[in-house]
Amino acid sequence: MRKLGAIEAGGTKFVCGIGTEDGQILERASFPTETPEVTMKNVVSFFEGKDIEALGIGSFGPIDPIVGSPTYGYITTTPKPHWGQFDFVGHMKKHFSVPMSFDTDVNGAALGEYTWGAARGLDSCMYITVGTGIGAGAVVDGKMLHGLSHPEMGHILVRRHPEDTFEGFCPYHGDCLEGMAAGPAIEKRWNIKGSELTPDHPAWEMEAYYLAQALMNYVLILSPQKIIMGGGVMKQEQLFPLIRTKLSELLNGYVQHPSLSQHLDQYIVYPELGDNAGLCGAIALAKLALEGEEGATIG
Amino acid sequence: MRKLGAIEAGGTKFVCGIGTEDGQILERASFPTETPEVTMKNVVSFFEGKDIEALGIGSFGPIDPIVGSPTYGYITTTPKPHWGQFDFVGHMKKHFSVPMSFDTDVNGAALGEYTWGAARGLDSCMYITVGTGIGAGAVVDGKMLHGLSHPEMGHILVRRHPEDTFEGFCPYHGDCLEGMAAGPAIEKRWNIKGSELTPDHPAWEMEAYYLAQALMNYVLILSPQKIIMGGGVMKQEQLFPLIRTKLSELLNGYVQHPSLSQHLDQYIVYPELGDNAGLCGAIALAKLALEGEEGATIG
Repeated sequence: MRKLGAIEAGGTKFVCGIGTEDGQILERASFPTETPEVTMKNVVSFFEGKDIEALGIGSFGPIDPIVGSPTYGYITTTPKPHWGQFDFVGHMKKHFSVPMSFDTDVNGAALGEYTWGAARGLDSCMYITVGTGIGAGAVVDGKMLHGLSHPEMGHILVRRHPEDTFEGFCPYHGDCLEGMAAGPAIEKRWNIKGSELTPDHPAWEMEAYYLAQALMNYVLILSPQKIIMGGGVMKQEQLFPLIRTKLSELLNGYVQHPSLSQHLDQYIVYPELGDNAGLCGAIALAKLALEGEEGATIG
Repeated sequence: MRKLGAIEAGGTKFVCGIGTEDGQILERASFPTETPEVTMKNVVSFFEGKDIEALGIGSFGPIDPIVGSPTYGYITTTPKPHWGQFDFVGHMKKHFSVPMSFDTDVNGAALGEYTWGAARGLDSCMYITVGTGIGAGAVVDGKMLHGLSHPEMGHILVRRHPEDTFEGFCPYHGDCLEGMAAGPAIEKRWNIKGSELTPDHPAWEMEAYYLAQALMNYVLILSPQKIIMGGGVMKQEQLFPLIRTKLSELLNGYVQHPSLSQHLDQYIVYPELGDNAGLCGAIALAKLALEGEEGATIG
């Protein structure tokens, strides 16, 4: 059994793990996100002597995931102190000479759900996380979505709810999706943590109003075969039926497909890998690196 | 020299052509879009005796472009009388036993620009048409974007311009992008055809306001390497600088990439294939069909 290394690098903590090619997690540890010096020392120590054959890294961003780019493998322009222009892959390569794959945490999570979770057997899916920020990744035709760079879907424009006077907290766009619907927006708007609001509080109708708009645009632009929604805010299960109903109203029958007209409850779902979506995503990235290496050797 | 057949099937007219593998158009003819019986008779006659080795069809929609689906090759739920559930590929297969490729007109145009036009040498691009409707297609990692079905990007949600009281004309969504920014919206809002408005008319600032919002969302969701904007409305050249400026304001430096920060004039462009974008797209689809056939034979 080959051992795969996985790093889910978040703004608050790094989760490191050892997994197998069928997505099982054998071991894990987590470390707070401090300076790169401190955190990476913990990360490297974790993997030492564990004989990993590949490494997958799903990271907070913005990052450069474009193979061949001069800054491939870097965390790039993050406002997070000390981490801007950090050569993540380069640092790991100094310590481990194994194939590596590097992408956003959400592209990784989409790949994990595509490989072992809710989107198994499909060609495409999206993974959206709604937490302290909003981010999304996608698998299109079996590959993670890239272009100019990686997507930044959390910052799309939304229409203001008619009863909402909250100005939005995104430092770049004010009232974009993240600015209006990430966890901190809920807390600032209602002066109470989202986790302390009752399930019938009007906050959730408003939250669903924004998230359904985002899904409308994602569906019309990307046409994913499955939409997976995770992150702290999505633990509020009452959001799912609210979002499905509002999306259905917004689409208004325009896109004719059974997934949208009859099976929305199977189309918009919580991650099948649950809280392991991120770490399993990084394991899936490692598996991809291993297969890529083998493909290259054979080819 | 091998001859490729191409059909650009629009709601008003069908353009048929014969092209070469390097994208040259050797011959063309156009026919009004009447009933399938009348129009398809003209189409079939055009290609008879021309010894085409493959056929590409870029069609108005909605269509089913998903190979393997029971209704692959059909125009599906179009409101256009007589064309709903028309088996386009099936009809052509009865007359010509050559490899065929079938997609939306805009996915075809994106492929054409990717193969021979403004996006040559890149991995991804988008083609947006702004005319009697708004549609967009995309090439992602060298392949046309599909998922649940094909994208329907013209119907995404936009924020209303503060001075705009026009209700929108989309029968499904009222004031979605198409409802607010397609040619008929301009005409209904200002009671005059867009082509008769002066270049400094406030209509264009408002038009750019909506189109820049759409581009903001396309960039954040798809991250295309090039955005190509065609169609009748985009013949108003003054729109391009207006759209670029507004997009830049909306993004507000969030996505750091030279294409967005320094080279927007080369990032958002008019089709390099000009009015041939659609027909060349269909030729590119035919080329794809030919290569797919040969790939299948070799493989």
